Amino acid sequence: MATPFRIVFALYPRVTQLDFTGPYEVLARMPGAEVIVASTDGGELASEMGLSFARLTRLSDIAACDMIFVPGGPGQTDAMLDTRFMAEVTRLGRSARYVAAACTGSLILGAAGLLKGKRAGSHWAYRELLAAFGAVPDSARVVHDGGAFTGGGVTAGIDIALRIVADIAGAGTAKEIELMLEYAPEPPFGCGRPESAEPATVAAVRERFAAFAAERRSAIERLTGGANA
Amino acid sequence: MATPFRIVFALYPRVTQLDFTGPYEVLARMPGAEVIVASTDGGELASEMGLSFARLTRLSDIAACDMIFVPGGPGQTDAMLDTRFMAEVTRLGRSARYVAAACTGSLILGAAGLLKGKRAGSHWAYRELLAAFGAVPDSARVVHDGGAFTGGGVTAGIDIALRIVADIAGAGTAKEIELMLEYAPEPPFGCGRPESAEPATVAAVRERFAAFAAERRSAIERLTGGANA
Repeated sequence: MATPFRIVFALYPRVTQLDFTGPYEVLARMPGAEVIVASTDGGELASEMGLSFARLTRLSDIAACDMIFVPGGPGQTDAMLDTRFMAEVTRLGRSARYVAAACTGSLILGAAGLLKGKRAGSHWAYRELLAAFGAVPDSARVVHDGGAFTGGGVTAGIDIALRIVADIAGAGTAKEIELMLEYAPEPPFGCGRPESAEPATVAAVRERFAAFAAERRSAIERLTGGANA
Repeated sequence: MATPFRIVFALYPRVTQLDFTGPYEVLARMPGAEVIVASTDGGELASEMGLSFARLTRLSDIAACDMIFVPGGPGQTDAMLDTRFMAEVTRLGRSARYVAAACTGSLILGAAGLLKGKRAGSHWAYRELLAAFGAVPDSARVVHDGGAFTGGGVTAGIDIALRIVADIAGAGTAKEIELMLEYAPEPPFGCGRPESAEPATVAAVRERFAAFAAERRSAIERLTGGANA
């Protein structure tokens, strides 16, 4: 790997911050990594639940990168419809050796035309929407197809990032990071996917997501002319 | 549970951001939770790997809270020696119904006298240091003793927070959050604890941590007069 290996996290308002901060913690520890956190306007940015980030770089100020990483979140729909944001993601993504996303960030990569014909993952509730962009929805926790790393929702970003480190810097480095971060998770209820959750839990979460899902679906239909949606 | 249930994250410079952002993502989703992110001076704060947060509240502006949550990180040693920071943690912690920490944040709770006689966890590399503060080091991923929730390093904050939600708001709510965040982790190498890692991985990480460990140990000896250290 050539160093520095420049990774750009492309953020937007109402991003789900753990989609980003999980993989950031992993990737920033990769020796030789230069991690840039950026948004359309740079400066400050507020995430979904209110937590704000400071000192972001402007995406348009970044000439090129080795990897662009796009997190998901409720703001993903507006971001996908924001032509300034999408122009920068498309520009950086086309010249990068790798594109990556956690959760519904993959829908942004898809909308940028960066996942055509590729297997890709997303949050379980929105995964099938990837097909509208010519991607092949894959239910794996981490999906690696050519230069594209995607996967499941929110917390999957940590697994995706560890697999990226293993691929780029080697398994030895990824193992050290896994141990540094004491990544030996014990989900208390083992219900992190709908297949393993009780029907009442799935129904409650689907209800909470209903508005987002409708909004996402209709935005994607507008973008793609409903051809595949 | 009385609402709002006020949770204060007490941050300090060079905090490990995932120690905080993991549990933040979980706890901010607990219905009725009011989450305040705070530091001694408020405003902006830079974390260990460079990521900066904005719009923090001043700890001294918070009259009281239901839970104080302290993350860990390399800045933990300086924070523990910072009398202004420690005065606020002690004040809020004494009046809170719950105190919580991820990773070496428990050493700050310990230094504030909030873990005396309690079982408590910390990052695997620093757990034994808790004994200097009269706590009983416990190797569990999540350690719950009375009003104190602590546990393992960095990523353990997610598990700790889900157990807090289950305890305070009920298992049903915690299950929904686990599913929302698609928390079905797949650590690629299964080496997140020294017991399950290869000796070479453990040795490399211990070497990387050596300076922090020496600094922590000597700071704790200064604070406690070496009585238990």
